[in-house]
Amino acid sequence: MLSEQVKNKLITIVGTENVQDSKASLLAYSYDATPGFQSFPDIVVSPKNKQEISEIVKLCNEYQIPIVPRGSGSNLSAGTTPLHGGVVLLMKHLNNIIEIDEENLTVRTQPGVITQDLIQAVEVKGFFYPPDPSSMKISQIGGNISENSGGLRGLKYGVTRDYVMGLEVVLPNGEIIRTGGKLAKDVAGYDLTRLFIGAEGTLGIVTEATLKLIPKPETKKTMLALYQDIDAAARTVSAIIANRIIPATLEFLDQPTLKAVEDFAQVGLPTDVKAILLIEQDGNESVVNADMDKIAAICNQNKAVRVTIAETKEEAEALTSARRAALSALARLRPTTILEDATVPRSEIANMVKAIEEIAERNQVNICTFGHAGDGNLHPTCLTDIRDKEEMARVEKAFEEIFKKAIELGGTITGEHGVGAMKLPYLHLKAGEAGIEVMRGIKQALDPNQIMNPGKIFSLSDRNRVVVQK
Amino acid sequence: MLSEQVKNKLITIVGTENVQDSKASLLAYSYDATPGFQSFPDIVVSPKNKQEISEIVKLCNEYQIPIVPRGSGSNLSAGTTPLHGGVVLLMKHLNNIIEIDEENLTVRTQPGVITQDLIQAVEVKGFFYPPDPSSMKISQIGGNISENSGGLRGLKYGVTRDYVMGLEVVLPNGEIIRTGGKLAKDVAGYDLTRLFIGAEGTLGIVTEATLKLIPKPETKKTMLALYQDIDAAARTVSAIIANRIIPATLEFLDQPTLKAVEDFAQVGLPTDVKAILLIEQDGNESVVNADMDKIAAICNQNKAVRVTIAETKEEAEALTSARRAALSALARLRPTTILEDATVPRSEIANMVKAIEEIAERNQVNICTFGHAGDGNLHPTCLTDIRDKEEMARVEKAFEEIFKKAIELGGTITGEHGVGAMKLPYLHLKAGEAGIEVMRGIKQALDPNQIMNPGKIFSLSDRNRVVVQK
Repeated sequence: MLSEQVKNKLITIVGTENVQDSKASLLAYSYDATPGFQSFPDIVVSPKNKQEISEIVKLCNEYQIPIVPRGSGSNLSAGTTPLHGGVVLLMKHLNNIIEIDEENLTVRTQPGVITQDLIQAVEVKGFFYPPDPSSMKISQIGGNISENSGGLRGLKYGVTRDYVMGLEVVLPNGEIIRTGGKLAKDVAGYDLTRLFIGAEGTLGIVTEATLKLIPKPETKKTMLALYQDIDAAARTVSAIIANRIIPATLEFLDQPTLKAVEDFAQVGLPTDVKAILLIEQDGNESVVNADMDKIAAICNQNKAVRVTIAETKEEAEALTSARRAALSALARLRPTTILEDATVPRSEIANMVKAIEEIAERNQVNICTFGHAGDGNLHPTCLTDIRDKEEMARVEKAFEEIFKKAIELGGTITGEHGVGAMKLPYLHLKAGEAGIEVMRGIKQALDPNQIMNPGKIFSLSDRNRVVVQK
Repeated sequence: MLSEQVKNKLITIVGTENVQDSKASLLAYSYDATPGFQSFPDIVVSPKNKQEISEIVKLCNEYQIPIVPRGSGSNLSAGTTPLHGGVVLLMKHLNNIIEIDEENLTVRTQPGVITQDLIQAVEVKGFFYPPDPSSMKISQIGGNISENSGGLRGLKYGVTRDYVMGLEVVLPNGEIIRTGGKLAKDVAGYDLTRLFIGAEGTLGIVTEATLKLIPKPETKKTMLALYQDIDAAARTVSAIIANRIIPATLEFLDQPTLKAVEDFAQVGLPTDVKAILLIEQDGNESVVNADMDKIAAICNQNKAVRVTIAETKEEAEALTSARRAALSALARLRPTTILEDATVPRSEIANMVKAIEEIAERNQVNICTFGHAGDGNLHPTCLTDIRDKEEMARVEKAFEEIFKKAIELGGTITGEHGVGAMKLPYLHLKAGEAGIEVMRGIKQALDPNQIMNPGKIFSLSDRNRVVVQK
């Protein structure tokens, strides 16, 4: 519980209209898109600018009150659940695109801008901002930065990190720093820009970002390759890359996912095959055409039962939109949907898909798999019911086995969703105790009072993964 | 001075043949490629593997002896000068390319491999490793990583940071950690990989790296555009980018640099013009041809007096090799050559070139300018004589003015050379005191005894820039 004194100080900083502490408000911000994690904040505050954020941080630092910065709460690792109560900090007022710089190919933006709005704003001017998490219709740029979000175009274009050139950050002590800038090269000291990217709000609050743009590709083509053999689909992924072709998008969907997506989106996806690959290439028209021909040939060599190219832009967009809706589609099937993002080197995709199937069967849990195959970034998605404790124990065990298998194959426990509270017990598998010690040291140096999003990424003790808090 | 006891322990770890402390050896490693900085180490040690490095680090940590990891010493910021004595650690035995993975498009390498050897080894297999610092014939990959080196292909392809997917690092406490991997996506905790990149050896010792490869571009063309007006050349740079073309290389050389380079390399560079742009584009042949036509038109619109395209691969390579030799060529003209790398947003290139000319004139110092114009990364190079104290004071003043101007234009004090000891007094201009405090905190967390390359990047007190030590 916050004291009246602290609450009044918060009201003085941001105004009554920007402080919420009704039961309904606290409930609304007690969870994010991650099932199984819930914990009430003490108050929800919506600052209007960085000065107010700085004042809030100084106040919270003085009284040792946790702060959880929150975009749209679309993250899937319980990264914005206020596990230790405190202040949920909404960025809704910091929602302006400040400048699109056509000479330097940059956009300066506030963190509360919706990802898709930013993408559309720069596309109007002939530019391209590639990072496109599936949640881009609702996710905020600040959240994308704090989670280092990926998306469907990661294979060719990289992730959010690859497009952040500079940041303005309110530190846990309330000081405001600027890093980087409109600079293709900058090595003035440690790379603080990239330290804050993916730090999940545990090191400070991003209040502005300078993002890199690239020229919009001239054209884009979209292909579906259908398989009656999951292995063959996975082998196709490796074969395309081994042929020195880097598609813009190279997505995998297994049959259960396909069925759910088609049922939800009704775009004419085949549901009688074991798996599909959704492949896109963009760029110069003649290059795209040549690549698509080569890719089609590789799919056929690898036992695709059919290869089709979308004939219109609308048809192509319907397919990618349907793919983006995979989580929503699957979420309709059972009360609880747990989506993971264990990631492996792309050469291990076939082995990983096989392992997931075997693990699901052995633990008798229902796991559908889809994801960014070209990145080795799969989303094994478990359809379950969190109220069923016995089943949840098997789900938990299955995911633990999946994480360990990913690590064994040279992979990681999370490709693009972050550690948050959800994968905290598994971080040591990837980072090792010595690596976690380094992270703890950095955290301690920047945030000695542990006010910034406490209980995320790492903690002092392990704990079970799927637990409803408070 | 090291005690005999410590020296004997070092010999026990690496063998007598890998320890040098003769006067000649200590002299050889008392300086790097940066003029004006010299300080003797106590001993030079060449470990054979990470275990030996770990033991050396533990020993040095116990006795609080500085360690300066050193590649080829080609850096230009006094980053490898042993300012506080101690151990210079040579990586010459860790010189193997471990694996080129054709399916995952990665190369695993030890840090002592020469940059150009690695580039050639992957090109034989049809891959491309873009970062190409001018020193690549002698520089080591480990040094490139520690300095986050750039190069001539940075505009289109980015810098070393953009190609490092994973690292193995010996921490200042002797523990060995691995970060990242053959993974297109990995967000398992803080981005330690990028924290070590560009940390100039102050946070640990890189003992292995996994680097990203891309398919080798199909073709490449090289163009020279000649100008009688420096402003017009600079404006051309902005105009090319504003026309949504990203060339692989976009280099600027002013007349004094041109004269020196032609005198040195004799490749037929024109010396009767005020400036040239060296422009390369690579990729699909039809795209390259179309881009080169558009670029030629833009050059002509912006008052180029002549535009020529290299007719053979040999001619093209002679031109880029000549450009890479710019520093060596200029270094022949006067006893001391001080090369800087103040960097600005590329839209400010014209203003920065003008400012450098004005600052040089006002301080009566001889500054030639060349550099990676497409990146806004200029190398104003002062030809001087370090023995002339009165002139050196003016040189110092001119560079300080150049740094301040770069910052004023939204730039940075160093684009690709690092801070080292040389630009340490100016870091606050870019990072601010609060930013430096964050860096100090990180350093303190990882290296509480300050043994790793002390006196670099930041320190507790300012000091003059060009000072011969000890």
